[in-house]
Amino acid sequence: MKKAAILSLFFCIIFVTIRAESGYRLWLRYDAIADPQVLDSYKKSISGWMIGGTSPTLAVASEELQKGLAGLLNGQVIRVYTPSDGTIIAGTPSSSQLIGSLNLEGELDVLGEEGFIVRTMTVNDKKTIIIAAGGDIGVLYGVFRFLRVLQTNSDISNLQIAEKPALDLRILNHWDNLDRTVERGYAGFSLWDWHKLPDYLSPVYSDYARANASVGINGVVLTNVNANALVLTPEFLVKVAALADVFRPFGIRVYLTARFSAPIEIGNLKTADPQVKEVADWWKEKAREIYSYIPDFGGFLVKANSEGQPGPQNYGRSHADGANMLADAVMPFGGIVMWRAFVYDNKIPEDRAKQAYNEFVPLDGRFRANVLIQVKNGPVDFQPREPFHPLFGAMKQTALMPEFQITQEYLGFATHLVYLGPLFKECLDTDTWCNGQGSTVAKVTDGSITERELTGMAGVTNIGNEINWTGHPFAQSNWYAYGRLAWNTNLTAEQIAEEWIRMTFTQNTDPVKIMLTMMMASREITVNYMTPLGLHHLMGKDHHYGPAPWVNEGRADWTSVYYHKADTEGVGFNRSSTGSNATGQYFSEVAEKYDNLATCPEELLLWFHHVPWDHKMQSGRTIWDELCFKYSRGADSVKWLLNEWQKIKGQIDAERFDHVNDLLAVQLKEARWWRDACLLYFQQFSRRPVPEEIEKPEHSLEYYMNLKFHYVPGI
Amino acid sequence: MKKAAILSLFFCIIFVTIRAESGYRLWLRYDAIADPQVLDSYKKSISGWMIGGTSPTLAVASEELQKGLAGLLNGQVIRVYTPSDGTIIAGTPSSSQLIGSLNLEGELDVLGEEGFIVRTMTVNDKKTIIIAAGGDIGVLYGVFRFLRVLQTNSDISNLQIAEKPALDLRILNHWDNLDRTVERGYAGFSLWDWHKLPDYLSPVYSDYARANASVGINGVVLTNVNANALVLTPEFLVKVAALADVFRPFGIRVYLTARFSAPIEIGNLKTADPQVKEVADWWKEKAREIYSYIPDFGGFLVKANSEGQPGPQNYGRSHADGANMLADAVMPFGGIVMWRAFVYDNKIPEDRAKQAYNEFVPLDGRFRANVLIQVKNGPVDFQPREPFHPLFGAMKQTALMPEFQITQEYLGFATHLVYLGPLFKECLDTDTWCNGQGSTVAKVTDGSITERELTGMAGVTNIGNEINWTGHPFAQSNWYAYGRLAWNTNLTAEQIAEEWIRMTFTQNTDPVKIMLTMMMASREITVNYMTPLGLHHLMGKDHHYGPAPWVNEGRADWTSVYYHKADTEGVGFNRSSTGSNATGQYFSEVAEKYDNLATCPEELLLWFHHVPWDHKMQSGRTIWDELCFKYSRGADSVKWLLNEWQKIKGQIDAERFDHVNDLLAVQLKEARWWRDACLLYFQQFSRRPVPEEIEKPEHSLEYYMNLKFHYVPGI
Repeated sequence: MKKAAILSLFFCIIFVTIRAESGYRLWLRYDAIADPQVLDSYKKSISGWMIGGTSPTLAVASEELQKGLAGLLNGQVIRVYTPSDGTIIAGTPSSSQLIGSLNLEGELDVLGEEGFIVRTMTVNDKKTIIIAAGGDIGVLYGVFRFLRVLQTNSDISNLQIAEKPALDLRILNHWDNLDRTVERGYAGFSLWDWHKLPDYLSPVYSDYARANASVGINGVVLTNVNANALVLTPEFLVKVAALADVFRPFGIRVYLTARFSAPIEIGNLKTADPQVKEVADWWKEKAREIYSYIPDFGGFLVKANSEGQPGPQNYGRSHADGANMLADAVMPFGGIVMWRAFVYDNKIPEDRAKQAYNEFVPLDGRFRANVLIQVKNGPVDFQPREPFHPLFGAMKQTALMPEFQITQEYLGFATHLVYLGPLFKECLDTDTWCNGQGSTVAKVTDGSITERELTGMAGVTNIGNEINWTGHPFAQSNWYAYGRLAWNTNLTAEQIAEEWIRMTFTQNTDPVKIMLTMMMASREITVNYMTPLGLHHLMGKDHHYGPAPWVNEGRADWTSVYYHKADTEGVGFNRSSTGSNATGQYFSEVAEKYDNLATCPEELLLWFHHVPWDHKMQSGRTIWDELCFKYSRGADSVKWLLNEWQKIKGQIDAERFDHVNDLLAVQLKEARWWRDACLLYFQQFSRRPVPEEIEKPEHSLEYYMNLKFHYVPGI
Repeated sequence: MKKAAILSLFFCIIFVTIRAESGYRLWLRYDAIADPQVLDSYKKSISGWMIGGTSPTLAVASEELQKGLAGLLNGQVIRVYTPSDGTIIAGTPSSSQLIGSLNLEGELDVLGEEGFIVRTMTVNDKKTIIIAAGGDIGVLYGVFRFLRVLQTNSDISNLQIAEKPALDLRILNHWDNLDRTVERGYAGFSLWDWHKLPDYLSPVYSDYARANASVGINGVVLTNVNANALVLTPEFLVKVAALADVFRPFGIRVYLTARFSAPIEIGNLKTADPQVKEVADWWKEKAREIYSYIPDFGGFLVKANSEGQPGPQNYGRSHADGANMLADAVMPFGGIVMWRAFVYDNKIPEDRAKQAYNEFVPLDGRFRANVLIQVKNGPVDFQPREPFHPLFGAMKQTALMPEFQITQEYLGFATHLVYLGPLFKECLDTDTWCNGQGSTVAKVTDGSITERELTGMAGVTNIGNEINWTGHPFAQSNWYAYGRLAWNTNLTAEQIAEEWIRMTFTQNTDPVKIMLTMMMASREITVNYMTPLGLHHLMGKDHHYGPAPWVNEGRADWTSVYYHKADTEGVGFNRSSTGSNATGQYFSEVAEKYDNLATCPEELLLWFHHVPWDHKMQSGRTIWDELCFKYSRGADSVKWLLNEWQKIKGQIDAERFDHVNDLLAVQLKEARWWRDACLLYFQQFSRRPVPEEIEKPEHSLEYYMNLKFHYVPGI
């Protein structure tokens, strides 16, 4: 019999190793806990589970708890109907009599519908773990929270967790087109298989919703901000409704992008002027129609008068006029409008970085209560590093939501390992000084400085139809980090990364430590090999692939030279008070710091200043040498990443190891390409030698300038 | 200890059930054999395996054998180095001393490089199973063949298998564009992730090659016949080479589509005239360049002077002139040219169905030895049913290869369950009479009637980047069936379907029988609800989605009315000797049969004849009533498919059951749509009532005519 046991264990092992590690399971793997002591302690502490209530959301929570426990504890954990020692009791006071009997209403009221308590409690003289919430969705979030405790092998002997989300709206923006191409998408094509909707509902849709719910994301904009009015027609609304039905149990609302000219394109009107009654009526009727398909439709996201998109300014109206018209249409149904502040116009003779502020600050206080202004983290466009956007803190009577880019449009697409947690945090933690010291972007966002009706955050997603969702296995961490931060802006990037590694790869200390170090270093590495010291917007034209600091043709604010302004004197965009005075858009404490070459953080130096080539840096090097050093260090660090990764071999599955390994080789190649192309280019202006110790470029500048790329993804 | 055994078995079961059945594994699942008797007998008969030789192909064969045996026999089967009872001995006479000692050279010579023997043999007094071949690739094919024996739970006590492929070239055509869209692709987007090539080689590439090798496919054309010259530039050739490197061990060569105007587009020449020396030289140099990247490059596939593609006729030259120029370029390197006969021109005042024959027959004997003319199965375009193409048998001095469409452009995309085995076989088994009775298309193809230098078959693939490769789980069977028939045209569609079901779903008799019946009926069902009785080309304009017999605008030979010619007198295209005389393109025995309304098979009646509405059919019904009956029967049969499928519930995994179930519901909806739209449309001309017993249409004709579809996949 002993032999049989060993034999069947052996088969188990075969099964486990045969199973392909495609990455499809993300951080919700629920593989059996490998540490026998932890497993044993969990098995002793968890005897069964119960969830009161039968709503679709509670059904999903039940399924998750059952699946999670069975996987992690390596065997079914039974559902019970009366508590005993080790029972997990989940529910709301109204769905579960037992939860109702615990006098938690006061606490739960404070936590709201989405908040929850996960707590070790004595119930009917039994030591239980309760997962209690004011609303069903809070129960689901609590279940995921509890499972994360197990997934990260944390102690469960005395759980005392109470959480509520920092923000009301935690939203993913899909820049997905109706033909399934994805603008700035590098992980294949759109998840939404419009042709087969509404009849065929791929399991991918619920797996997607589940992954979002596991990190607290509660809204998704299905369509590209460069919008197509057809999605607002019944042909597509019935499909949108089918997705909404799948997402609803997971607490996720759907939103659509509204093309401002839709009344003309699909409504047969002659104008889309928001002051024309027929136009406003058309949108009201359209909203009514949408809500007849999707009763909990979230609302609209709008890109107007930006990069060729139509908007109210086509008719001499303001952004407020446009946004309010749409807001009035969805207001009766509880919908909202997210209006993007990403506006700039090459016909306006003003620094592009200043235009959104100039446009929107005068409108402060003029937006309806159900409008949020969606503001990119920085004033230009999702560069590897930007200062925070001066609109944060500047519109005290308007709800603002930051927009982060999870997809790596400017950070190496889906082939570079770049953990964006530090980038997101850098913005959130920056002090705007809008209300004195400590007025961080996070606090501006979450309403703790100004009372806000609505708070939110948007992330432009990196999800596509590749098997592993995001292309690069580590790009999953950016989806995860975005969701976690939208839930709790106080988490550190490091904390999130470690959670993610433990859930996604392994619990073993050594590899966790290595991966964590790699992830935490990765964003700065990328800044160094792409755009160090405040450089920005140096990438290939249109497709944004690779370095192209030489771009100088076409619309000026789409060239590279507009941004780096390199000449024989120096390099950098003078946005100080002697230049475009973009620094003047910040509150004085910040403005003064940025305005002064001596106090401006070196990492933003060339963003705000045109710096002479022999300017001395804190290192003692000239800025030219420092630039060389940074670029070189960036590329060398990718070599370091690759070396570190070798230590992971055998510590995780071969499939994902190889995948990351191959992509790190791509990243190294491209990092060197960035370094060589940029240094050769800038050297034309600096007219100084590249320090001896730095690796010589592989090719000539001409070679790099002549590279052509066809069918680059994401456009 | 007993408890431990049971417990760990229990965990095994959990593992198995947790594993997602995405369909990714195709027919190469290698799950443990469920029948304990069969498993036991295999375990007794197979004790170990050995493969002599270390070539990349033999390494792949070893891995497959190891993986297959471990999975099917539910435990590792050891690799051994001397035979004992139950050893599997694989190799070629030169790679394996043991195989070399068996005096099989004579037999193996006859079977060629790709053929193999799988045989129970006494070797060194031990009862072994040998897998012997003349070439390494034959060993791999033999391994797959042997594993199929196990996968289908067949008896292995006395194996006596010797096979060689019927055709030299067994090729998949990918209509994949460089932007990853797929023309007529309904399973997502292109597998080829050009942007990440050549650096990142997804495991999908080798899994794809492995699946192809398992059915004997030995060539793949990577790019769309509507070709893009850029693929012939170094930017892409280095990527093509990377794919070729992955495919090579699996015996697969890559081919590319050659855009005839490439010398102008990428070569800076002023002309692409094949008679101009610079043009021919450019192609020779281009071929040399391609072979420097890919030493075993297969050659070119060309669509010329068809549907807007450039070709030799642009310069007053013939197809032979064009094909021979390219053939001369690749000849020194062992390459071939596949030149498509799919040509027709609306400016030629001739029945479209006749044009390819008219164009190509006069060129018989004028093509180089390394040119094959690729001929669609029927004379129009992959319709649900067409007569065989009159070119088969008509070009006795030219190598012809049939082109089948595996992707269901005209057969319900990837949402209809349509097993195409019967369609492929119908063509292959039809007697052309080109050399007296028995001159089937298969025999014309395989060279058994006329000696041929080269034989081959092409299949336009249905593969995309969806997790299960083909969209519809049953569409995998069409990939499988194509490969099997290209290997052996004598297999029956039923035989292939049963193999596939057993490998893909289950061994249990009842569900196998049900699925087999469904599959075997499915193609005729689709003919009935789409285009019964010889109707053809009634689908939606451009996107080909759904019924649109009313299309009457634009290029005439792209309308529906061109083909059905319905009027108040009758319906059908008079291609008899009183009409376009397309019947005259067939050999007389066939021509006479088709030409005569009385002898023409009813299933092709409206292809060849304009039939009065009150023409009496064999059933005794008028053709109008028969049309009603066929359409109705088609739709009703989909209901029957759906009912049959319910019997499968619980007999296979829930994931694939649900997937098929949902798609059958789509198919039913669309079958009714076809029935209602077509009957309402034709009734305008027949002016006769639809028989009482037939379900009433859900909507008016106007409703169906006004349906609009945006972003239909595949264009």
